[in-house]
Amino acid sequence: MNALCILVSTCLSLSLGQDEIVDLTHTFGKKTIYWPGNPPFNFSNVFRLPGTPGYIAEANAFETAEHSGTHMDAPRHFCPEGKRMHELVMDRLSGPGVVIDVRKQSEANSDFQVTEQTFRDWEEEHGTIPDGAIVLFNFGWDKFWPNRKQVFNTDDVMNPSTFHYPGLSPEGAKWLTSNRKVHAVGGDTPSTDYGQSSLFETHVILLCDNEIVILENVANLNSMAATGTKVYIGALKLENGSGTPVRLFAVPMSSASVTRCSMLLLALTLILKALF
Amino acid sequence: MNALCILVSTCLSLSLGQDEIVDLTHTFGKKTIYWPGNPPFNFSNVFRLPGTPGYIAEANAFETAEHSGTHMDAPRHFCPEGKRMHELVMDRLSGPGVVIDVRKQSEANSDFQVTEQTFRDWEEEHGTIPDGAIVLFNFGWDKFWPNRKQVFNTDDVMNPSTFHYPGLSPEGAKWLTSNRKVHAVGGDTPSTDYGQSSLFETHVILLCDNEIVILENVANLNSMAATGTKVYIGALKLENGSGTPVRLFAVPMSSASVTRCSMLLLALTLILKALF
Repeated sequence: MNALCILVSTCLSLSLGQDEIVDLTHTFGKKTIYWPGNPPFNFSNVFRLPGTPGYIAEANAFETAEHSGTHMDAPRHFCPEGKRMHELVMDRLSGPGVVIDVRKQSEANSDFQVTEQTFRDWEEEHGTIPDGAIVLFNFGWDKFWPNRKQVFNTDDVMNPSTFHYPGLSPEGAKWLTSNRKVHAVGGDTPSTDYGQSSLFETHVILLCDNEIVILENVANLNSMAATGTKVYIGALKLENGSGTPVRLFAVPMSSASVTRCSMLLLALTLILKALF
Repeated sequence: MNALCILVSTCLSLSLGQDEIVDLTHTFGKKTIYWPGNPPFNFSNVFRLPGTPGYIAEANAFETAEHSGTHMDAPRHFCPEGKRMHELVMDRLSGPGVVIDVRKQSEANSDFQVTEQTFRDWEEEHGTIPDGAIVLFNFGWDKFWPNRKQVFNTDDVMNPSTFHYPGLSPEGAKWLTSNRKVHAVGGDTPSTDYGQSSLFETHVILLCDNEIVILENVANLNSMAATGTKVYIGALKLENGSGTPVRLFAVPMSSASVTRCSMLLLALTLILKALF
């Protein structure tokens, strides 16, 4: 039994945390896209002292809208009594990663909306969406970043009634929140409601009725597996914030570790068997 | 062998990611401490629409110095050719957590500096500092936050020559970087160099000579175990940044999982043995 325990420990220590982290975050700077009506990103130099070795070379400051770039919405963004950023704990800002690939549907129809059927189709292939999941839709919108006209899919980027990009339908949001217990929902478009939404019902269902946070302008979903990761929302613990830019990333873990662990265990057992 | 693989898989899936995440971040707001000479934090409302259900309730914007609150220094902060924030990948911003408790030494002497001996003493008890570690010093400074006079330990918070708080000595930094391969070094004081430093040599050794990032004003280290966690630096991917406020957190993992996994495996094996 002792040998078995050592094997498992070795296996675990060798297999944990060795996969490369997938960064789901756009670079946050002057090209960053924000929703019309918000102030633009501004970066300013506090001091730069080139050629002064041994003392500070550089420090900067920046101004930003909360809902800018790869960011999250706290419940307060839509709900007068909703939780603010500093009230959300890290356990609620993390969970098993789920990527739902709807690139084909979105390419065929930029007003496409995810429905109950989309979830059912995904689950048939990948199994039930796990408790605490961070559910991310790959609409194929990443390739348009940071071209504002392409991202909002309009010539009039200041007028939301002209926007055309895919999203999660209110009916889909209702099914998900009634039947699964997820921590966050998001995607690679500027809003989880589709571009033509004027009531933002999906926001209200997620944020207000179910306290599920929303992720927008997510990057790099093509590089993330459908399952087998743990996602962390590296959100600023912003006092009274209704949202904040985030560092969002996925740590490949469960399935890869299990596979590698099983193989290692098999190899080690065979070696031990041969030796003794 | 098959049964063994199933046991390991079950064990891993049951044991992974079930401990509570330790949040190492101070709330980021108007009381946030920043280094003298930097602009203060500013939070402003973009719009608030209370009582308008179905449409946005609230959005805000904020201004901040990069080196403010619980934050990180990128190499560029001290090195004219150093990497900026957007050039640092998540794999370099994560690693096994190491907490070195020097509260007693710091309480006895607020000018205390960590030396090679401090590391050797820690390793005698806990084992070698692992590759890629995020090394965090618990100086016992958390209890002073956010009282600026107590944190800088002076009556003149605008004059760094009067500051008195503990740090990592340049000799200690040289030993650590020559003998171990760590990803980040930090602690619960406003600077990794001690308060009386005027040359900031430890910053230069870490950031410029070794490209090791620095964490400052870390919170809540009393709640974090000396080993057995994975730490993630949820840093903004700030274009051209020399640093940024972060969401810093520790995920309890290896040791807890190994223990729990070993026990589960033992139990499952005994059950199987009894059955067949």
